[in-house]
Amino acid sequence: MSVLDLLFGRPLANEDEEHQRVGVVAGIPMLGLDALASAAYGPEAALTILLPLGLLGINAITPLVAIIIVLLGIVFLSYRQTITAYPNGGGSYTVAHENLGVIPGLIAAAALLLDYILVVAVGISAGVGALVSAIPKLQPYMLPLCLLILGLITIVNLRGVRESGLAFVIPTYLFIACMLIILAMGAYFVIMSGGKPIAKIAPAPQPSTMTTLSWWLLIQAFASGCTAMTGVEAVSNGVSAFRQPATHYARRTLTIIIGTLMVMLAGIAWLAKSYQIGATEPGKAGYQSVLSQLVAAVSGQGILYTLTIGSTLAVLALSANTGFADFPRLCRILAHDHFLPHAFASRGRRLVYSIGIIVLASFAGIILIIFGGITDHLIPLFAVGAFLAFTLSQTGMVLHWFKHGGLNARRNMLINGVGAVSTGITLIVILVAKFATGAWITLVILPALVGLFLAVRRHYQQVAQQVQLNIALDTSNLTAPIVVIPFGGWNKMAHKALRFALKISPDIYAVQISTAEEAATKREQWEQIVLKPIQEAGLAQPHFELIESPYRQLFGPLMRFILDLREANPNRQIAVIISELAENRWYYYLLHKQRGMVLKARLFFGGNAQIIVINVPWYLEH
Amino acid sequence: MSVLDLLFGRPLANEDEEHQRVGVVAGIPMLGLDALASAAYGPEAALTILLPLGLLGINAITPLVAIIIVLLGIVFLSYRQTITAYPNGGGSYTVAHENLGVIPGLIAAAALLLDYILVVAVGISAGVGALVSAIPKLQPYMLPLCLLILGLITIVNLRGVRESGLAFVIPTYLFIACMLIILAMGAYFVIMSGGKPIAKIAPAPQPSTMTTLSWWLLIQAFASGCTAMTGVEAVSNGVSAFRQPATHYARRTLTIIIGTLMVMLAGIAWLAKSYQIGATEPGKAGYQSVLSQLVAAVSGQGILYTLTIGSTLAVLALSANTGFADFPRLCRILAHDHFLPHAFASRGRRLVYSIGIIVLASFAGIILIIFGGITDHLIPLFAVGAFLAFTLSQTGMVLHWFKHGGLNARRNMLINGVGAVSTGITLIVILVAKFATGAWITLVILPALVGLFLAVRRHYQQVAQQVQLNIALDTSNLTAPIVVIPFGGWNKMAHKALRFALKISPDIYAVQISTAEEAATKREQWEQIVLKPIQEAGLAQPHFELIESPYRQLFGPLMRFILDLREANPNRQIAVIISELAENRWYYYLLHKQRGMVLKARLFFGGNAQIIVINVPWYLEH
Repeated sequence: MSVLDLLFGRPLANEDEEHQRVGVVAGIPMLGLDALASAAYGPEAALTILLPLGLLGINAITPLVAIIIVLLGIVFLSYRQTITAYPNGGGSYTVAHENLGVIPGLIAAAALLLDYILVVAVGISAGVGALVSAIPKLQPYMLPLCLLILGLITIVNLRGVRESGLAFVIPTYLFIACMLIILAMGAYFVIMSGGKPIAKIAPAPQPSTMTTLSWWLLIQAFASGCTAMTGVEAVSNGVSAFRQPATHYARRTLTIIIGTLMVMLAGIAWLAKSYQIGATEPGKAGYQSVLSQLVAAVSGQGILYTLTIGSTLAVLALSANTGFADFPRLCRILAHDHFLPHAFASRGRRLVYSIGIIVLASFAGIILIIFGGITDHLIPLFAVGAFLAFTLSQTGMVLHWFKHGGLNARRNMLINGVGAVSTGITLIVILVAKFATGAWITLVILPALVGLFLAVRRHYQQVAQQVQLNIALDTSNLTAPIVVIPFGGWNKMAHKALRFALKISPDIYAVQISTAEEAATKREQWEQIVLKPIQEAGLAQPHFELIESPYRQLFGPLMRFILDLREANPNRQIAVIISELAENRWYYYLLHKQRGMVLKARLFFGGNAQIIVINVPWYLEH
Repeated sequence: MSVLDLLFGRPLANEDEEHQRVGVVAGIPMLGLDALASAAYGPEAALTILLPLGLLGINAITPLVAIIIVLLGIVFLSYRQTITAYPNGGGSYTVAHENLGVIPGLIAAAALLLDYILVVAVGISAGVGALVSAIPKLQPYMLPLCLLILGLITIVNLRGVRESGLAFVIPTYLFIACMLIILAMGAYFVIMSGGKPIAKIAPAPQPSTMTTLSWWLLIQAFASGCTAMTGVEAVSNGVSAFRQPATHYARRTLTIIIGTLMVMLAGIAWLAKSYQIGATEPGKAGYQSVLSQLVAAVSGQGILYTLTIGSTLAVLALSANTGFADFPRLCRILAHDHFLPHAFASRGRRLVYSIGIIVLASFAGIILIIFGGITDHLIPLFAVGAFLAFTLSQTGMVLHWFKHGGLNARRNMLINGVGAVSTGITLIVILVAKFATGAWITLVILPALVGLFLAVRRHYQQVAQQVQLNIALDTSNLTAPIVVIPFGGWNKMAHKALRFALKISPDIYAVQISTAEEAATKREQWEQIVLKPIQEAGLAQPHFELIESPYRQLFGPLMRFILDLREANPNRQIAVIISELAENRWYYYLLHKQRGMVLKARLFFGGNAQIIVINVPWYLEH
């Protein structure tokens, strides 16, 4: 069993693919973690903005969350239609691309890719941040811990989809169960007490420094609260990860995810208002999350508290996994359309898109390193990307129904139209509210990414054009090539190379680099070992070129010889034979200088269309 | 100008090498930074151990430093002889290897490699630690800052030796000048005041918790103080970096470095005793380094204080550069003796040993990440490696004189013998004193490294044995190979490949993978484009193999075809032609899936000695 197998699992054949697909139970953690985790920070983000208002601010949370829930409902209906219309996966890119054109599609794709990278970095740093507040001794190791967790999640994902799904099932369902129990208990207490429940553990006091509720503050709070909606597009994008009938499973999964999220948001807002729970200053001493205060107020700090907060932290950290499910999938679609290198569409050993996973992990790692493992202020950036993708996707769906018609085309257009308009307005609100605090970054990165996508496709198109063939086979001038064999010493590798050369051409140049002192010995060796048997067999004599190089430089003199030969024979092809040690263990390759690869790179980089490289392997026994 | 040029400088030809060599002025910063920087932490390390003794401890520092200075003198005389005896660079590895045998040489080499990695990690983290105490806002970014500086030093070193020397000259000489001025001023005040100088700024008070000076504590303090001697072997190892006459310049550089270090150590110890300056608890509030207290006591906290402390910090951080000068050089020597992969002996674009630099940077980066940028407690580990190398090198020199004799063989043997015995005793003292706090790590890593070195050499020997040739050229069975051309579509690349195949063999198999629907079209295309012209020219007809693969799998069916062909023709060689896009910009290679490379790897990995791979490049125009 090799190290690779141990880390990443045994390689899977393509036939195993169907077994790797998921149903609803595994689909919810796989594609819904991000969306569900939003409940933990969305309401809190809004309440933090309202902090200066004290109790006045807490009362404003219910209408704000109500608007968000309505938006969520609209988005749910829209995406439900998208899943039906695009059973092979209707991510915002696909929908926008097919219906609105290339550029809107690429904008949606760029926005989503950026979001997926952010969700990975922020999810991990949030989880580690929580861990570090529990065990302050770990404080100096925040960044190493972040990178360690990133590494672990990357390995889990390189092992494959279903396994990562299973590994994430328990915390997700524990989180959902705990939250629903807490909310039900809270609701019971609120109703029983006639709307004035007594907190088991009193929430933090709410000193107010402002007394008037301004529109600007409300808009800011709303924009922050919209982070509660990030991640809900994951299901429509990942329909192809479900087993058949995929549409059915995907719709069900979406319904459960969004339904749960709506109940959680409504419950949190209502209980926060009833118990008068507000945010506390983040990053300051005495900070306590809204969720922690709420759970403590309803149930005290017993076992249920520990379970709820523990599973919340786990879900936050693991929400990073949503990015790992979606990013490579979107990259594959882009690569398929020639907007990213084709390697993104190649499945690795375990039927996952390894390169996408590795690129995602690298970018997330870079962000973590730049921000030293503290990336919380990147959270608002999410909302921009998510709502940009929502809007483009819904708009695309309107055009889809317009073009394709169908039984309920009018009703469908109306649903997606309402979705497009409402998410579009929200996007503008968020952009205006968050422009100075980070939304501008999105407006710099997105055009750059779109430019990259277009440049990649342009290159592929050029290549296709250039290799296009319009003539039949040209059978003129089929003279055998001139064969060049560079060799160091006279050994079995050189022997095999020379024999191959004799099989394909009568024009052979054996080239040996040596110092002046060795020249005579080498020439004699050549005559004994090679020339004599060749004369006896009556074959054409190969040329022997001894190039003196006082400093034992290899490539310079050899390249000069080959290029001179090429100039002297403009109508012949020059085939250079490179002997290579073929090892049966990959790490042995580290031991050889790969002179062959260097020589090949130099020959090909020079732009010498006449030159062909022939690799003759020599197998070692171990 | 390419990105590589911008970052690493234009490539240098081998002829430029002589100009890259250094004299004394550039040699001191390049090879002496580490040794000189030791003055900043050696006495402090000893005083920290003596901390519980208060003033009693401070009085013990002068005899301890006196012993260290005597040791330094002995080591100086020993290494001076080594430089003369080994004008091409007589590092501890070379000397121990040549005179004591393979294993002692490898132990010395492993000890030094470990030391060089440690000096890089510790130097950088010490510098960043100082920066962070000056600007506490940077506290959360310690590790990113460490990695950033590591990256910068790496780039400077990849650009080449002389430039890095120049970039480090100013802080080194500023540090030496400031230290000598401070020590001279202090000496003047001490003498003028009759041994009882009044401090300009009073040093930290010295509360004592112990009243008896135990031998164990003194030994501990001595072992810690010995870190002051690390780095002095650098010059003897780096003789080849000097310009001619190298021996002369190297001896001069060594004399200046060790002389300066002795003066600084003596001065620091004497002034510390006279001004009654002790260490403060490291890592606690109120910590102040011994050097900082000393400079403040002598000169107050004016411009001279700022210059001295600033240059000390710079020198500490830059001492990492000594590792960058030495590590690749030692790796090259080991690679030359087949104990490390030969790639370590290849010069890069700028005549430096790029791979050694990159490996060193990687290990240092890993240590920095594991320890979160705080690696100060690794400092005692240095001393073990350094003294192990000292002892082995001196012992080797004794045998060198014994074997080679010469005019002053007896005197020389005596000098090196005294060196060997005294550093050997010191090594045992350090090992015993520091075993529990880290020296044991060295005893785990060193044997592992030595084992690796031996395994690498064993492999190279096996390869050389296996490819050895004892017979003359075998001219039997020179039938042309069977040529296989896998191709996707009929384009210019396939055209060029087929033409080459026709030149070298009459047995050609063109293999196309396709779905069942396309089969008929492709067969017709083949007949029109290829068969017709071949029949007209009267050439042997190539076989056309259409392999149906419903999932468009490429490698599986192709490999099966090639292996079947091989089995059917056990006495023929099979040449597989792989068409490749040759791009004129490296980043375009990222855009192509390198199917050719994958196929070649699979063909060669299978252990098919019959199979040859032919690369036919296709050049794109841009």
